[in-house]
Amino acid sequence: MIENPIPWPHGKRCCVSLTWDLDIESGLAYRHREKITDLLSTRSLLRYDSTVGVPRLVKIFRDLELRLTFFVPGWVIERYPKTIDLLIENGHEIGLHGYMHERSHELSADEEADLLQRAIAVYVRQVGSKPKGWRAPGFTFSSRSADLLVDAGFVYDSSLMGGEIPSLVNTRKGSLVEFPIDWTLDDWPQYMHNRDFDFLMQIASPNRAMEVFRSEFDAARTYGAHWISIWHPFLSSRLARLSAIVELVEHMRKAGDVWFARLEEVNDHVRALMESGKWEPRVDQLPFHRQSDIG
Amino acid sequence: MIENPIPWPHGKRCCVSLTWDLDIESGLAYRHREKITDLLSTRSLLRYDSTVGVPRLVKIFRDLELRLTFFVPGWVIERYPKTIDLLIENGHEIGLHGYMHERSHELSADEEADLLQRAIAVYVRQVGSKPKGWRAPGFTFSSRSADLLVDAGFVYDSSLMGGEIPSLVNTRKGSLVEFPIDWTLDDWPQYMHNRDFDFLMQIASPNRAMEVFRSEFDAARTYGAHWISIWHPFLSSRLARLSAIVELVEHMRKAGDVWFARLEEVNDHVRALMESGKWEPRVDQLPFHRQSDIG
Amino acid sequence: MIENPIPWPHGKRCCVSLTWDLDIESGLAYRHREKITDLLSTRSLLRYDSTVGVPRLVKIFRDLELRLTFFVPGWVIERYPKTIDLLIENGHEIGLHGYMHERSHELSADEEADLLQRAIAVYVRQVGSKPKGWRAPGFTFSSRSADLLVDAGFVYDSSLMGGEIPSLVNTRKGSLVEFPIDWTLDDWPQYMHNRDFDFLMQIASPNRAMEVFRSEFDAARTYGAHWISIWHPFLSSRLARLSAIVELVEHMRKAGDVWFARLEEVNDHVRALMESGKWEPRVDQLPFHRQSDIG
Amino acid sequence: MIENPIPWPHGKRCCVSLTWDLDIESGLAYRHREKITDLLSTRSLLRYDSTVGVPRLVKIFRDLELRLTFFVPGWVIERYPKTIDLLIENGHEIGLHGYMHERSHELSADEEADLLQRAIAVYVRQVGSKPKGWRAPGFTFSSRSADLLVDAGFVYDSSLMGGEIPSLVNTRKGSLVEFPIDWTLDDWPQYMHNRDFDFLMQIASPNRAMEVFRSEFDAARTYGAHWISIWHPFLSSRLARLSAIVELVEHMRKAGDVWFARLEEVNDHVRALMESGKWEPRVDQLPFHRQSDIG
Repeated sequence: MIENPIPWPHGKRCCVSLTWDLDIESGLAYRHREKITDLLSTRSLLRYDSTVGVPRLVKIFRDLELRLTFFVPGWVIERYPKTIDLLIENGHEIGLHGYMHERSHELSADEEADLLQRAIAVYVRQVGSKPKGWRAPGFTFSSRSADLLVDAGFVYDSSLMGGEIPSLVNTRKGSLVEFPIDWTLDDWPQYMHNRDFDFLMQIASPNRAMEVFRSEFDAARTYGAHWISIWHPFLSSRLARLSAIVELVEHMRKAGDVWFARLEEVNDHVRALMESGKWEPRVDQLPFHRQSDIG
Repeated sequence: MIENPIPWPHGKRCCVSLTWDLDIESGLAYRHREKITDLLSTRSLLRYDSTVGVPRLVKIFRDLELRLTFFVPGWVIERYPKTIDLLIENGHEIGLHGYMHERSHELSADEEADLLQRAIAVYVRQVGSKPKGWRAPGFTFSSRSADLLVDAGFVYDSSLMGGEIPSLVNTRKGSLVEFPIDWTLDDWPQYMHNRDFDFLMQIASPNRAMEVFRSEFDAARTYGAHWISIWHPFLSSRLARLSAIVELVEHMRKAGDVWFARLEEVNDHVRALMESGKWEPRVDQLPFHRQSDIG
Repeated sequence: MIENPIPWPHGKRCCVSLTWDLDIESGLAYRHREKITDLLSTRSLLRYDSTVGVPRLVKIFRDLELRLTFFVPGWVIERYPKTIDLLIENGHEIGLHGYMHERSHELSADEEADLLQRAIAVYVRQVGSKPKGWRAPGFTFSSRSADLLVDAGFVYDSSLMGGEIPSLVNTRKGSLVEFPIDWTLDDWPQYMHNRDFDFLMQIASPNRAMEVFRSEFDAARTYGAHWISIWHPFLSSRLARLSAIVELVEHMRKAGDVWFARLEEVNDHVRALMESGKWEPRVDQLPFHRQSDIG
Repeated sequence: MIENPIPWPHGKRCCVSLTWDLDIESGLAYRHREKITDLLSTRSLLRYDSTVGVPRLVKIFRDLELRLTFFVPGWVIERYPKTIDLLIENGHEIGLHGYMHERSHELSADEEADLLQRAIAVYVRQVGSKPKGWRAPGFTFSSRSADLLVDAGFVYDSSLMGGEIPSLVNTRKGSLVEFPIDWTLDDWPQYMHNRDFDFLMQIASPNRAMEVFRSEFDAARTYGAHWISIWHPFLSSRLARLSAIVELVEHMRKAGDVWFARLEEVNDHVRALMESGKWEPRVDQLPFHRQSDIG
């Protein structure tokens, strides 16, 4: 089914990247800046990300010997340095996820650039290196985003939705490896029910959610795709759900031919393929049509 | 269950038309004309229609030896001529689907007529013939639509929802064969989750969606109905979903008594039945009651 | 589980009333009076009620030897006299369902009274007798509704949601037998997906909907309750769904101890029990608290 | 999976608290103060709480020999004293649930304090003692709520969502035991469908809802957590749903190692553990960040 299939390393059939967005309260703070201090119940739900979620994930995936990718807003890095340290100490990757879970299409050009710089500064201070990977908060990627990211030295993005294997996005200033995602592998549509986010899903059982995630994996394995979860600790590290994830990972592992990799590792693989001439990804020129083309 | 059942050709028991709406970015452009250039993530999702979806569908259905019907807005035909060529070369039918996925009840009479003319001109230029079939974008069919379509030489419509077999809609100016559809066989309620369209469904697994589509097929076969999918490449050509569709098609095929046909073929069949006097469809006079009748 | 259980006739264990709301276009006309003439696709969907739904139901339930209760707005009775005649000829009951599917809490006292009189006049003219049974459109039952219904000679209502067996509602002017219903046995939450009604459910498969309806029946049978469907021909008489309903009815019938009855028959039974002193229903005084009690 | 697991009494593996919110009409009255008297159908649905729900629950759980926790608004205690008496006589716990199901973040500081005092006064008058336990209506817990509760002598709260075992929340004035809950064990997302609450879920079958509740229980038992339902009699004491709950309770009981306890009992257990030094809960300082920290 996949045109121009990407060769995975060591003869593996497909690639699985377990990525998590660690938003904690940033999205609520962006959305309800004035009244957030009076939304303690939702705040406690989101803080579960760091009080319960991350330590649990660290332990479980240490036992599973798997390393994860976390996308984290700068605002969160500033406020939860120990959580970030814990992740780094355990070999997990930290990508950047905006400053305050801002929605880029609601920002002016200056605001978008300023928040990115602010987020990068926080990241560098805490992590000790510049960020390589980006996921736009709420998957809001503006016409300016790619240029800003290239300028800032990012090497990959994982915010767009145009496929099932890595591609390349080109801007005037350079290019990024793109790891396309989809709401299908996000846990919000299965589990999120919260009035303060105006997001009222009928909560699915873990089995029912895994049916969605697992059918995507089974097809990814059959056809050689890149399967990328977009999970959130406050939703998916609850006991029953994380137990179901462990079962899913064991199902993936039993296949014996799955490459589990953090996105930065996949980025290295893609770039090595390109440099050696062994494989060329699809290239998309951003920002697609200009306004004058829409008409 | 069906009054006045239609005889299908070659003694087949029912008819299956696999129709797809190829909207790409037209609906987003209509809805968010000003800010679409800053909605890159949703744009990339929709462009999957052409970058991944259509080539994949062409290949899979070539292998299955089945030909499909695509409804395409003029705006899309203008911008994706190669995609249209690829479909035509492979024997798929191109119906018209508005100009910019406009919602007809939001338009004035002049706007509706102008957009139709604009879409037809684009179609003729690209396809080389006048369009025969129409599906109203968003199933928005105004009191003027039927007259406009008859005037423009269309022979069938597939936008209304009044039954499970072909019928005839009459206007002052002439008539159209009507192929009634229903949201039940649309993939949006099963899979679509996107804030920019304000459409947040809990994403179903492919099995769960197929349960809906397949139960409709099983009943269609039992009772001799016309089963018409309304699918979208960016949703239903994802790996896991298209795999499930292939299984559904094999289930249909195994029955041995299903007529797979593009809508233009079904239109020819219906008209031949009528001309030969072998069968008369139900006739609906449009536009139903007048405003003064509603009161 | 049921306090004060009602004795059903002939030693039956529970009662099943298959009731249908035949709204056709009335609700759309009430909601979109100005623009309805340009909503042809939704109109065609709703008109399926009469073009396809009712004739099909009449035939299927004739074969099943079961009689149904239909609640019909006056506006519909006026416009579809043959549909009403067909139902009556086949022994189905016609209850009243407002005039134009109006929502009573949006009306002034005078408007509510006027629309009721208008609906009754239409009913009497077409049916030849005064209506006995009422179901409030949209289950909107105002503080005035019960008085108006008693004054107009109605003997029962089926709009409230306070239980699983018949009860009595008292007003200053008299009383009505009340047959309580619930959204659980309504087909809208399972199947309705339509933008013009701003009602976008993820469409369930017939099996999944029947799981809801059947679990309610199994419990009704175990505990002696009154199971009352609230179905709509344009949704539930589609081929696959009606096939599933026929299976459900066969499941009910196989039990051997279910009393299938139209609501007017159940009304007669309840009143006979009360008059003979064999059973006393729960009595609710309407309209519950007064405004001054709410605080 | 659980850091710092709590030892349950008598060597039990996990704890189950069956808690119910008995709102009756309070939430509707708060939301629609002016027009509630014309919303009789929704009112009858909510009144089922007391006319059918509570008596049924009392009987069923008497047979099961289990005692429940009910959170009740003051407005409801005032209007339904017999319902409260019935619960108390049967050993069920009454916690406070606001005065009128108000949403605390919509209130001024004075209003919140006044409504709490009003609710406490009603509680004391009816129950004969001061309330110990609190659940914020709609899980709306303001920055002031904890201080107000400590001042008023409450000993525990069950409104926040930060975990799966009891914790402690500290304020300037003292501390409360916190029993964290989650929408996952609430019955609204599974069953609630009502326009007057603007809450339109696709109604799940009891089996499907139990799949959610039971998977949470199975994980709670495996890992030693505190499973807390948030159910509503008008939804979950319907025949089919309560039958499914009875089966779930039997499943829990068959395990043989589950501690069924009202929240006040769990509170006593937690405090005894702390006093004896056998276990220390996680402590959260409320109200988390200050406004000035959000930035």
